[in-house]
This record gives sequence, structure tokens and C-alpha cells, in this order.
Amino acid sequence: MPRWVYGFGNGSADGDAGMQALLGGKGANLAEMDRLGLPVPPGFTITTDVCHWYYRNGRSYPPGLIGQVRDSLARLEAATGRGFGDPLHPLLVSVRSGSRASMPGMLDTVLNLGLSDATVDGLAREAGDERFAWDSYRRFIQMYADVVLGVDHDAFEEELESYKDEAGYLLDTDLSASDLATLVDRFKEIVAEATDRPFPQDPGEQLWGAIGAVFGSWLNPRAVTYRRLHNIPDDWGTAVSVQAMVFGNMGTTSATGVAFTRNPSTGERALYGEFLINAQGEDVVSGLRTPQYLTRSGAAAAGSDAPSLEQLMPELFAEFRAICDRLERHYRDMQDVEFTIERGRLFMLQTRGGKRTAEAALRIAVEMADEGLILPDDAVARIEPASLDQLLHPTLDECAPRDVIAAGLPASPGAAAGRIAFTAEEAERLRSEGHDVILARTETSPEDIHGMHAAAGVLTTRGGMTSHAAVVARGMGKPCVAGVGSIRIDPKARTLKASGRVFGDGDTITIDGTTGQVMAGLVPMREPELSGAFATLMGWADEIRRMKVRANAETPSEARAARAFGADGIGLCRTEHMFFDDGRILPMREMILAETEEGRRAALAKLLPMQRRDFTELFEIMHGRPVTIRLLDPPFHEFLPQDPAEIDTVAATLGLEPERLAERLKALSEFNPMLGHRGCRLLISYPEVAEMQARAIFEAALIAGRSTGAPIIPEIMVPLVAARAELDFLKARIDAVAAAVMAETGRRFRYQVGTMIELPRACLMAREIAESAEFFSFGTNDLTQTTFGISRDDAGGFLQHYGQKGILKFDPFVTLDRGGVGELVETGVARGRMARPDIKLGICGEHGGDPDSIDFCEELGLDYVSCSPFRVPIARLSAAQATLRRRAR
Amino acid sequence: MPRWVYGFGNGSADGDAGMQALLGGKGANLAEMDRLGLPVPPGFTITTDVCHWYYRNGRSYPPGLIGQVRDSLARLEAATGRGFGDPLHPLLVSVRSGSRASMPGMLDTVLNLGLSDATVDGLAREAGDERFAWDSYRRFIQMYADVVLGVDHDAFEEELESYKDEAGYLLDTDLSASDLATLVDRFKEIVAEATDRPFPQDPGEQLWGAIGAVFGSWLNPRAVTYRRLHNIPDDWGTAVSVQAMVFGNMGTTSATGVAFTRNPSTGERALYGEFLINAQGEDVVSGLRTPQYLTRSGAAAAGSDAPSLEQLMPELFAEFRAICDRLERHYRDMQDVEFTIERGRLFMLQTRGGKRTAEAALRIAVEMADEGLILPDDAVARIEPASLDQLLHPTLDECAPRDVIAAGLPASPGAAAGRIAFTAEEAERLRSEGHDVILARTETSPEDIHGMHAAAGVLTTRGGMTSHAAVVARGMGKPCVAGVGSIRIDPKARTLKASGRVFGDGDTITIDGTTGQVMAGLVPMREPELSGAFATLMGWADEIRRMKVRANAETPSEARAARAFGADGIGLCRTEHMFFDDGRILPMREMILAETEEGRRAALAKLLPMQRRDFTELFEIMHGRPVTIRLLDPPFHEFLPQDPAEIDTVAATLGLEPERLAERLKALSEFNPMLGHRGCRLLISYPEVAEMQARAIFEAALIAGRSTGAPIIPEIMVPLVAARAELDFLKARIDAVAAAVMAETGRRFRYQVGTMIELPRACLMAREIAESAEFFSFGTNDLTQTTFGISRDDAGGFLQHYGQKGILKFDPFVTLDRGGVGELVETGVARGRMARPDIKLGICGEHGGDPDSIDFCEELGLDYVSCSPFRVPIARLSAAQATLRRRAR
Repeated sequence: MPRWVYGFGNGSADGDAGMQALLGGKGANLAEMDRLGLPVPPGFTITTDVCHWYYRNGRSYPPGLIGQVRDSLARLEAATGRGFGDPLHPLLVSVRSGSRASMPGMLDTVLNLGLSDATVDGLAREAGDERFAWDSYRRFIQMYADVVLGVDHDAFEEELESYKDEAGYLLDTDLSASDLATLVDRFKEIVAEATDRPFPQDPGEQLWGAIGAVFGSWLNPRAVTYRRLHNIPDDWGTAVSVQAMVFGNMGTTSATGVAFTRNPSTGERALYGEFLINAQGEDVVSGLRTPQYLTRSGAAAAGSDAPSLEQLMPELFAEFRAICDRLERHYRDMQDVEFTIERGRLFMLQTRGGKRTAEAALRIAVEMADEGLILPDDAVARIEPASLDQLLHPTLDECAPRDVIAAGLPASPGAAAGRIAFTAEEAERLRSEGHDVILARTETSPEDIHGMHAAAGVLTTRGGMTSHAAVVARGMGKPCVAGVGSIRIDPKARTLKASGRVFGDGDTITIDGTTGQVMAGLVPMREPELSGAFATLMGWADEIRRMKVRANAETPSEARAARAFGADGIGLCRTEHMFFDDGRILPMREMILAETEEGRRAALAKLLPMQRRDFTELFEIMHGRPVTIRLLDPPFHEFLPQDPAEIDTVAATLGLEPERLAERLKALSEFNPMLGHRGCRLLISYPEVAEMQARAIFEAALIAGRSTGAPIIPEIMVPLVAARAELDFLKARIDAVAAAVMAETGRRFRYQVGTMIELPRACLMAREIAESAEFFSFGTNDLTQTTFGISRDDAGGFLQHYGQKGILKFDPFVTLDRGGVGELVETGVARGRMARPDIKLGICGEHGGDPDSIDFCEELGLDYVSCSPFRVPIARLSAAQATLRRRAR
Repeated sequence: MPRWVYGFGNGSADGDAGMQALLGGKGANLAEMDRLGLPVPPGFTITTDVCHWYYRNGRSYPPGLIGQVRDSLARLEAATGRGFGDPLHPLLVSVRSGSRASMPGMLDTVLNLGLSDATVDGLAREAGDERFAWDSYRRFIQMYADVVLGVDHDAFEEELESYKDEAGYLLDTDLSASDLATLVDRFKEIVAEATDRPFPQDPGEQLWGAIGAVFGSWLNPRAVTYRRLHNIPDDWGTAVSVQAMVFGNMGTTSATGVAFTRNPSTGERALYGEFLINAQGEDVVSGLRTPQYLTRSGAAAAGSDAPSLEQLMPELFAEFRAICDRLERHYRDMQDVEFTIERGRLFMLQTRGGKRTAEAALRIAVEMADEGLILPDDAVARIEPASLDQLLHPTLDECAPRDVIAAGLPASPGAAAGRIAFTAEEAERLRSEGHDVILARTETSPEDIHGMHAAAGVLTTRGGMTSHAAVVARGMGKPCVAGVGSIRIDPKARTLKASGRVFGDGDTITIDGTTGQVMAGLVPMREPELSGAFATLMGWADEIRRMKVRANAETPSEARAARAFGADGIGLCRTEHMFFDDGRILPMREMILAETEEGRRAALAKLLPMQRRDFTELFEIMHGRPVTIRLLDPPFHEFLPQDPAEIDTVAATLGLEPERLAERLKALSEFNPMLGHRGCRLLISYPEVAEMQARAIFEAALIAGRSTGAPIIPEIMVPLVAARAELDFLKARIDAVAAAVMAETGRRFRYQVGTMIELPRACLMAREIAESAEFFSFGTNDLTQTTFGISRDDAGGFLQHYGQKGILKFDPFVTLDRGGVGELVETGVARGRMARPDIKLGICGEHGGDPDSIDFCEELGLDYVSCSPFRVPIARLSAAQATLRRRAR
């Protein structure tokens, strides 16, 4: 008989922290804390295997489960000295979900289970508080009806409000025990009416109902969406933990709270958290009451007058702090814990690795390594490379004027500006229209996730640092300002009121998630500084990584950014970008419209000095680091005007008849430009273009080599090769130009000629091509387009349907498709090395900045990846992690 | 020391017919005839190895060659009893090229070499004919100066004409021996003036000059062009044969001629040839004199009054006929021979496999098999599949009125019509503008080949059945009418005069190469009948071949043609073609422009009965044979109007605002439609389209199954699949429709769902895809486009440059690129079989009708190829040959 249930409590847990796949994060960590001897209310966990069985067998349970739960329940009764359904000493339990990955708020939870007409008095007697007992029973009916029975919770809220109106009460706290008892009756009637059955009084029936609801919630739509956004596999499933209730709402010696062992926003090494006196856990997380700070320093930093737990309950606080320290040392990571104090007794309800901002993650990792808690390699391994994106986002320009209209909690750092969206749907729509968006909500709920995903930043008027909006925004790396009480949002009127001003549709605001400020209009932003923990960690990463990281850059400012971000060179300089500038587009067009080679050469002669200047500057900035320059790639028609008015202007400038120009335009237009007369095909038709570019490159290399004292070995890259003969034809021309420049200048220099491998045929023919090519740079953007037969420009329409229908699980233009495109790259690498074992290999598609794709490049043993300057740090870290992963094997 | 020279003569040749690669066709066959004891003038052949050496070593000769030539010359002197340069008994030789493949007229030849001031008298004495000797010397100087010394031959023609004017002569024959001696002096002066050196008198110098000229002619432009058009590798090289001269111009007992052992036009088993009394070989081939027929029956059939050789020299004719019979039996093939009679003595100068029309090739092969000369397998193996094209060309409708303006020789069968082109350049231009063209020339020369290639047919006013125009046209499979003496062509005035009428630019004429008729205007044509030898041979081919041959067909007329051409089924029915008809395009557009699924379904309901009718008719015509139907493939915008006027009309018809339609058009337009929203991507977005089509197919299969009594198992093909999930999504829809149709009709039926494999990724993922697909059809058109990254629609511009620059040696859209695309197909086949060992595999790109590609399909063991109906016979024959080739291994 398989084991379906694992118990914990009294230091003798069956499971441990290593069993997250089977027990879920919550269940495994409860077991671990129990093993550590920490005060954990006893309970048991039903495994994820049961979840798998449940879905594979028409939502039924495996044989043996019922017996195992019965036995576990009996042990729980023994451990607590209570009885399930016992009128004198009733056992109450919480029933919670728990997956391998944290999915905050996505799955269902039921508290106070076990309460019934028969047990409520027993609870009242034991607690010495009749009102508490009836309030707990009321809450239980409401929660159970909503989660398990599917009764709309609005019905209960309305009943509560109308009862208060009848009685002339203003606050919930005005309700007496007997009021609550009456409400319980009314609530039971609502349930009976909605479900045609009385509210279940048997605690066993209650329990199985709650277990079924938790398993069933695994496939609810918002959980499915959350998993899709976070790449959590659907087949992981959830476990169910059943745990004896402890109550933070048994009066003023009771409390409940959450804490991070270090600051999750900044990474500062200081206990950081919030609590509420006389409350249940859900009250803290929901953001409905504004909580107090745990520590004196935390309260002081936030300017809060409310007393801290450190002040109110110093001994309990000391016990709690010691537990936190122990957990952090034990897990060797910052922990996110939940606790409850029941009448002066501390209970730990949860611990897990805490979500944190990228800034915090970096600081924590680096400081833990400095503290000797982990190794530098561990620090490098545990930073999510994509999260660096947050650090590389702009911050507000400190010198720029700010029209501050409100301030709230700095819930997730970074600055963002955009149009106000009042609903998630609106945020998505505005984003799809190309606008940056700030999602402004009273508070957010799991239903808002897709809107938060679309938004550049999030603003809420209620809730604290651990509210839904704050936690999710930090996870997404989006700026968030939470709990801005001075702002009034009216989603129906579509207005946002602050400081007596009204903002609405089309208005732009700026938020600063680092300070909590909200500003009218667009405030200018500044590039981030990359020092401190960031620099330390990147230094460690650079020591570890085997692959070089280059940048795709063509302008001087891009090249400078590449250097600032730590690029080892330029992997892709797209020369065509240099021809769109004013002053260049004209000779470029002259060249294209010339009817003879002579005419083209005359126009190219005008472009030569400009290209030479471009390359000289680039070489000087890169100061001897390798620079790969791709010869002209796009089809000619991209350089010509398209709309009639512009055609007339251009014709006049060039002294041509507009008809003649229109005719030429028509002749150059293509059905499928992506597959047309471009790349090496164009250069083979007009080799004089390649000759001009080669000359500019060689002459620039000589100039920059002299001015910097760092000799340049330029790498000239021929694009879109499908057959070796194409490369050979152009290589001969390039070699001839090199010989001519050497003869003219009397100086010898080295250079390399290689090719983009960006067509399936080039991968297959790589052996032949490598006989001529000194390097390969895999152009995985075009290779993905041709391998899939998908035009990226046109794919929006159907790739969206593919996502919705689950046909493609990933976007192959973001993450390299290992099965298809990856096999071609692998083939290209292997065959290239057959002909030239020391061939230099790199990748320059956008995949060069994607961590998963970089891991694949390491697997293939490429020499470098090249990506946009902005993603260079991500690539450096990813490359280091890829090296570590290989070492671990 | 390698052997560079091979001798022949007196029955003791060093070489034989198997050594064509080394000795060229001419040299090898001269050796073979010598071995057979036939009367061959003695000589020797310098091998193609010397040619290779010559080009690899800066046009120099290998060591040892000079000595070997000297020795061979000495043996030749001994065999003939003459001396090279001997004033009394001068040895004269011809120096001819000879490659492995016949390249008629492309390479250079020098005759009468050895004549000089010192030897001309000796020749005169020996021949007893002073005029003959001086005329030979004159011709030699002229030919040698042209071929070896590069002196423009016009200078000699002008000198000859002006001499005749001075002397008051009309004809060349008016010139006496002393006139010719004077002309020889003047010719030598022309040479001396043009070359700054006297005409070479030393026969050794003459010989080496001629040898160099022949080797040099291998790379002359027209030879290079010819080889490119005929796929002859440049590195084959030519041999040089040096042979003792015999003279057909030594008076009326001398003659020269050419013959085919069977009729090269019709294949009839009858000696067929022409000769001229008192002439040299070049006179017959050049077409300048109209020759006489060899046989009595040949003369009678042509209505010629001139006596035949059979009548004039019956004994010699009998000897010749016996030699021809012997050669045919020996070579087991129809021979093309050249002979000369020198004063009553017969010499064989050449034999080779004779070029023939496709009709003749078929008849000869089938009759030789019937005669027991070869096996039926040999007959099948030796027909060039592409040549069947000729037989499948239309012939003139016998019932149509003909405005016959002239008649000439039926030089190459088949009928053609087109605009008149007076030059090769014009023919190319008109063709490129989309016109059919008839190239009309006085006579053609090798310089005209590109024009003949562009033309639909060729017309000449001079020359016979073996003239350049006739031979080349037959080789190309183009209709040709030659020697139409009654037509006058004036290329300068750009007129063609016949029967007192004048035709010029823009006028269309029709020629019938089977009868020799020339007609004004366009005469209606008829489909060919495929019976007789054709049917016999195809029957043999069908017995041999392993692969099935299907047709790509969608209309009833195409399907009927497919059956007529012997297709085993339909391999590709492109359903979109059915939506362009009147009456369908409107609901199709309604469907595309609908904003809801409901609206689309309403429009599809209108299309359903039409599609059902289409498929029913197709199934009925195919009568139980397999039919693969591809679901809708092209992007929606292809069905919408493009120009503004049409947009207005369509908008009015559909009751839409033109702006609304224009907007929708814009939304649907794509940058790269080839890689866009089409194929399964479109069907996944709008699965109702696939459902309608599946329903139409199933219902039609039931109807046609009942009406024909031949049950149909329709094959439904999903296009453009890149991932298994795409196919799965649509297969589920198709299966659901099948279940619904079965439920509605109460009848069960079988069907298959498979996919086009036309993207590189589909080949790589074939194992996964084959888990769902019951068949694969390789769509090699799109696969070639994506593998090369070349849009076929846009490739014209640069593939042409590629051809000129030798970068691509073949057109990958005609012949499957084995190295690149072929490897992907091979991968797809192997992986598909891993998942489903019995998966049905076919190919449906245009390569399905290309012999070389079909051979590759046999190599992969595909089940079938599918091609256009017209190419089905070619595919049947190619498939049989591929099977034979595999057996031979």
C-alpha cells in the first residue's frame, strides 16, 4: 500500500524539507521545522501523488487514503488531546494547499474546520470567549460555503451588512455573541437555500469536502494562468496539509504576523515584518487592516507610531528572532515565515525561501557569501539572471522636477511611467496598443495578474508591503507603490483623485517603487548604477564563466553601453543601420538607383569615408576587443521611400523623374523580403558594396590600431550564406581589398572572414562552409524563422492563438527551440568543427541574452554569446551558471 | 611516363569504345571501328588527360607528349606511306576535338593540315587535279587562320568575292587552279598582315597550332554555354584526334555523307541519310548545299528527283549498308555515322549513338527489344525520361483550318506557335515578356543556342535534316521546320515573306515539325495520343517500378488527364483552387470578412455543398484510387481583391463599406506571406474551415463510393505543420466531424489523416509528428524555400546571377538539392518510420516529376511520387529506371 499521508508534530515528522515534490513546499517545511524542534502545531500532509491519482481517475481518491487519513486524524487527536467533533474539546483544523512552487493566493484554504452546532459551545468554553467562538463559526461557514460549496460570498456580506443596519451597528465589532449566533443561523439558511442541503455538521464530511476543494482548485483558471506565466508545470499538482488550528484572534495576548529574515526590498540584514494583534493570518495578508511593524527599527524607519512586537512582547519577540536566525542558517537562505501567538504562546505556521527584489537577492547572496554562510559559487548560482533586468531599469532622474501628488509604501523598487489603467483588461488593451501603463487599483487580487503583467508598474490605495500587489509585483520585477491612502480611485467613473486633482483616461503618471512617490506626468529617468553587490557578484560570475559575452551594437552609444555592461566585444555590428542617418541615406539611394556598376561605385565612394569613420569610432571604443562586422544585409527596397509624397521629394533630390523612381521601387519590391534578394545574395549581385565595406573596415582598423595602440583583428561576417560558393565568391573580393589596402599603406594586418549561420541549409552544409569560414555566428532569429517557416513580423496573429490553445508552450523567438532549431545549431557546430576544429563559434540572435538558450550554448561549447547591451549582465550571469551546472555533472 | 597518345588504324587500335572518358567519343569509336576491321583512315588520339594538364598548368603540355606525338606521327607516315611535309607524297591530316559527350559544332576542327607551298604540288600530282590541290590549300589557310590564328574569316570571303568580281566570275567553280594559286598568295598576305608573321609553312608548327586551338576551344564561350545547358561538366575536357585525310572532293567518284542507321525522327527501321558528290564533310553539315538522299526509298519519300547513293554507287552503298548493320548490332543502338568515298573507296570517319527525337527513341527501343537486340529492361533504361515531354506536347488539330504559307523539312516533330523573333536576343526578350516565340532564321549557328532555348519552335530557310537547327532542336525536344526555301527572311527589315505576304513584329505563326508546314496565325492544337511504342514502353516501365506515381490535380479535367497519363491516384488536391471560381469566391470572401465564428460558419455552409460536389466528382473520376486532399493552405488575403476599383465592387456586393473592407485587407496583409498565417496555422485559428472541408470530403466519399461501387478511403492532409500539437489539434476536429457524419448517415467508413512535411522543423520532429500522422507527403517546394531561405517568387533576380557566376550548379526548385533539402527529407523519412514503421510516404513538390529527384525518392524507399498530370509518364519511366538502377547495385 503506498503511503499517501505524512504526519508532523512533536518533533517526529515523517517528512523533511527535501520532499517538496511529494509534500508541497508548505508540508515539507512544516515537517522540517518540526524536526528542528520548533513550535509547530501538529498535523499531516496528503501527498501530491494523491492529486495525480485524483485527476487521472475522474476526481476520485486512491484506495487506502481514507484509512490513512483516519489514522492520522486519530494521532492528531491524541497529540492535541482533542476530538474531531468532540463537544467538550473540539479539534479544529486548517486545510491548506501546498505545491512544490509557491503560488500565493492561487489555491484554496479552509480555516476553523471542525466547528458545528455541536462544537461551537465547546470552543466558547475552552476559549472563555463566546463571541470569539461564534465569530469563528460564522467565518468558517462563510469560507467553507464559498470555497467548498460554491456559494457566492456576496450573499453573506449582504446579510451581515443588513443585520448591522437592522441593529443600528456601524462596525463588525459591535456584533455580540448572540448577534453572531443569529447570523450563523441566517448563514446556514443561505447555504441550505443555495445548495438544497443543510450546512454539513459532520466534521468528517467537512474535512473531505475541504480536501476535494483544495485538489479541485489546482485546475481553477487563475491558478492555470499563474502557472503559465511562471512556467510551473501543470503536472506538479498540489499537496493538502491538515493542521491543528491555533488562534491569533483570542484577544490581546494573541497575534499573527509574517516576517522576512532579511529585508526583501533592499536585502538589508534585518528582521523585517508585520503583525496584527487579535487577528487571523488572512487579515495580515489581505491588506484590509494596516499592520504594525515587528521591530522597533522597522517602525522608526517607516515613521510609524504603532508599537512594534519587539516593544509589546519582548520575550516572545526574542524567541521569534532566534527561530528566524536558526531557520536562515539552516536553510542558508532568507526565509519568509508566518507565525501566530495564541494567548502568549508562539507557533510557527510556515517557512519558505522569501521572494525578494533583484536588488535584495543580489545583496543577500553577496552578503551571505561574505558571512561565510554560502560560497561565492552558490551566490552566483542562486540569482535568477532575468531578475537583473530590474536592476538595469531606469530610476527617476534626481535633478528632474517632480510633481508629487501622493506617497505610499515602496512595495517594489524601480520607476515606471504610463497611462492610467483602471482594470486589468484595460491595462492589457492599452499595452497592446503600444502604451506604457500604470495599473491603478484599490487593491489587487489574483484575477488582476494578467493586467499586472501588461503594466509597467502598479499602484494600490490599500494594503501593505506583503499585500497581494506588493508580493506579485516584486516577483515580476515591476515597480509598485502600495497603500497610497490619500488617493481615491473610482473605477466606474474612471478617475483617480489625488491632492484635489483629478486624473483619468489618457493621463500619464509616474511611480517610484523605491520611495513610494506618485507623480503627475512623465518624470525623466536615469540609467542605473552597477556597483556594490552587483559589481561583486558579476565579478564572481566573470571568474566562473567559460563563454565570452559580446554585445550586438553598432552606434557609439551602444558600444559604450556594451562596455559599461561588461561586454567582452561586439558580436554583431549591423552595418545597414549606419546608412539610415541623414547624409548617408542620400548616397545610399543614389547607389541603389544607379543603373551601372560605375554609377554604384561613384555613390559608394561617397559612403566610404563615413563608414570608415563609423568603424574607427567603434574600434576605438572597443579598444582592441573583438568586433564582428556584418556586411550589408537587408534588401535594397528597405532604403527607399514608400509613400508617394516622399517618393516625389526623393526623386527631386536625386534629380530623377518620380515615375522612374516608382518604377525602380516596383522592380525592387518583393513578395517575401525575408527570403529575398538580401544578405550575401545582394552582395554577390553587387560585389562593389562588399568591397567598399571591406575597405572601410580595414582602413578603420589601421587608424584605430594606431590611435589606441591596441591592434584590431576585425572579423568580417558574410550574412545569409546557404552554400560555400557564396562565401568563397565574397571572400575572394574581401581578400583582394585587403591585399590592395596593404599594398597602398605598406602595412600588413590580420583579419578574419566568417559567416552568419542562419539558414537550415547552412547548418547542414557547415562542414563545407567551414572550409572557408574562420568563424560562425549562429543567427538564431532568422534560423528560427526559416526552421519554423514563421515570419516573426507576421506571427503575432497566430502565435497568440497557439498560446491560448496550448499548441506552443514557449515563444521560440525568446527561448531557443532546442528540439528543432537547436538540433540544427548542434549539427552546424559539429560539422563546422569537422572541417576546422578550432573554428570560432558564437550566437548573435536575441537568444544570446536568454538564460535557457545560453545554457544550451554552453552545452554546445560555443565560444561566445552576443546580445543587446542591456542584456549583457544577464548573459554574463547565465553563462556563469551554465558553467556551474556543467561542473556539477 | 603516362601514356598521352593512343593510335588506331589497320585493325590494331590501342583503345576501344569503353575509353570515351579518356579518348573522347570520336577517338574511342574510331578505335572501336578499327578493331572491328572497318575501313578507318589511320591516326591517333591525344587524351583528355592532356587537356586537364593543359588547363592546370597554364596552357602548357605535359612532359613526354611531344615525343609520343612524334612517334605516333612516324607510325602514321609508315601506315600511309606518306611523309609529313614530304613534297612528293605529303601526309595531310585532320585535327578534331572529341569530348565524352557530343557537342556538335561547339569545338574547333582543322582539315587539310600539312599543306604548304612545298606540298601543294605533291598533292596536285597525286590527285591528278591541280585545281583540287590549290582549292584545298586555299580552304586550309582560311580555316587555319580562323581557328588557330584568330584572323577574321570575313577578310578571306571579301578577298574571294572581289577576285571573282575582278575576273568577271559568278561562281566559285569558275575559279581555275591558277586563280586559286593567286588567291592562296593573297590569303597568305592577309594572314601575314593580321598576325605580323608569315603563314606557317612547317607542318609540325601547323600541327601544334591546331592541337592548341582544339584544347583552347574547350573554354570558348559558346562551348561553355552549351555545356551549361546540357549539364556537361566543365572538367570532362576534350581529346584531340589526328587522322589521315581522305577526300570526298576528288571528283565525281568521290562523295561524303552522314547517315543514321534508323530514322532519327520517326524511329523507322530504315537507313536514313544524306550525301554530296565531290564535297567535304563540312559541306553536308553546314547546310549550304542541299544534299541528296542515301536510299531510293528516302528520296522517294521526300519527293526528291536527285539520284540516291543506292542508285549511283550500288556496290559501295551495299558495303556501307552492311557496315551500318554491323555497327548497330555491335553497339546495340542506332548509330549516327559519317563516311567519305575517295575515288570509289569507302572510309568510315565516325560512329556514335545517334541523336533522335523522343518518338524515335521510343520506337527504336521498343523495336530493338522486339527484335531481341536488347531486353525490355534495357529499352526502359535507355529512354531519357525528360524527353517524353516532346511526345506529350500538343499536335495541330487536324480539323482546324490551316492557313499554310510554306512548307519545309520536318526537322523536329511537334507543333508550336508564337510571335516571330528574328534574332536569338529578340527571342529571349519576347519569352521573358511572357510570349511564345518562333525563332525564324536563314540558318542557325551555335551562337543562336540561347535563342533556340527560349523559343517554342524554330524555323530556318536553309539547311537539311542534319543542319545545325535540326540537330539542336531535336536535342532540345522543340519543334523545328528547316530549309523552307520559299520563305525569305530579312532580319534587318524584320520581315518574313511567304506566299507574297509579309509578316513582321507582333505577328504569330504556327509551325508543324512533324509535317514541315508553316502557317499564318495560331492553329488550334490537340493533345497527343499515347499508344503504340509509348504504351508498350510505359507498360514495361509500370511492371518494373516499385513506386506509385500520383498526380497533383484538383479540377475534373486535371483528374481525367492524370488518369489518361496513367496516374495511380491523386497525391495532392489543393482545395483552395476550388474557391476561386465564380460563385465560390463570394461566400469565401463573406467567410473571411465575417467578424464572428457564427458569421464564418454561415458562409461556410454555403461553400459546403460546392466542395462536396467537387470532391464527389474527383472521387468518381479516380474510381477508388487514393486521393490525398490538402486542407486550405493559402493566407486569407489571397482571396481578397487588391486594386481599389475591385475593392469597391466587392464591398458593394457584400454590402460593406469600402473603408471597412480596405481596413480588413490591411489587417490581413503580411510582410512575408510565405511564412505567415496560412496552412494549419489558419485552420487552428479558424477550425470551422477544416471542419467544413472534412465534412465535404467524408460526405463526398460516401456518395462516390456508392455511385462507383469502389469504396474510397480519403486521405486528409494538414499543411505546414511544424509541431505535433498542430496536427493533433486539427486531427481531433476532423475525427469529431467523421464521427458526426457516421452518426448522421449510420454508415461507417475509413479515412486517413496525415500531413505535409514542408518545413525543416517538421523533418526534425518527424518522429513525434508520425505518432499522429498516418502519412507524410513531403512538400519539397516549400521545404526548399525554407531550407535555403529563398522565396521562389523573388529568386529570379539573384538566382540568375548565381548561374552566371557558377555559384549554384543547378536550380534547387527543379532538381531536389540532395545535400541540404535531401538530408532533411531523409531525416524526416527515418524518424517518421521510427514512430510508425508502415507510415505511407510520398513527395508532392514539383520535384515529384523530376527524374533525378525521383531517383532520390527511390533511394529513400518512398511509396509514391506525385507530380503534375503532364509529367506523370516521365515520373513512371523515371521510377522504373530508379528501380533498375537499384537492382543493378
